[in-house]
Amino acid sequence: MTAGCGAQASTLGIMFVKQVSSLARFTPEKMGKSTVVQGGFLFAGLNSFEPGQEHAPHSHEGQDKLYLILEGSGMVQVGDRTERLSAGDAAFAPSGIVHSIRNPGPERLVVMAVLGPPPVK
Amino acid sequence: MTAGCGAQASTLGIMFVKQVSSLARFTPEKMGKSTVVQGGFLFAGLNSFEPGQEHAPHSHEGQDKLYLILEGSGMVQVGDRTERLSAGDAAFAPSGIVHSIRNPGPERLVVMAVLGPPPVK
Repeated sequence: MTAGCGAQASTLGIMFVKQVSSLARFTPEKMGKSTVVQGGFLFAGLNSFEPGQEHAPHSHEGQDKLYLILEGSGMVQVGDRTERLSAGDAAFAPSGIVHSIRNPGPERLVVMAVLGPPPVK
Repeated sequence: MTAGCGAQASTLGIMFVKQVSSLARFTPEKMGKSTVVQGGFLFAGLNSFEPGQEHAPHSHEGQDKLYLILEGSGMVQVGDRTERLSAGDAAFAPSGIVHSIRNPGPERLVVMAVLGPPPVK
């Protein structure tokens, strides 16, 4: 089986994930990243922010990103709009649209990011 | 702007969704469906189940699906495995792998399904 056919997740047996937010990994120097699922057509990971940490503005051509806030709250920018989102809220950054996230604190922030297609490794 | 470039969501201004689960739509006869975001490369919707309702086993070639349980709990099948998942849990159905969901009750079940690439309308 090869990359590009969804085989990674199948091969690794990662079909079910209990309490996704428990996969959060924090690092003191910058936003932490962890993988939830890696498919051939879809990738999901966690972005985990200590108070004060951010994911700087960036965009992806040919790739959409869905953010779902799992824990805490943060300032989410998509294009020219910024909103404070909390657990249970979502944001959508279509291909080519600048987006960023910042955790103003005081609590930790955990965000699930779903990307289609997956990032190129 | 045309389909296939993520323009729908941009055009419609659907960048932020407060409390995604509030978009759930239930119908007495079968699983209810609602759209969360529609992009050129990614689609997210809600599948909402009254007790006893199910999404029958099916698969998609060339498309991965991520399920995230938002409310309640249900029996989720992926391939030859079935697990009871609850709010905060996820399941991943890679391209070509049979999957289904059933709500044994007694509570309502709300599941976010993220598909990449989006379903063909």
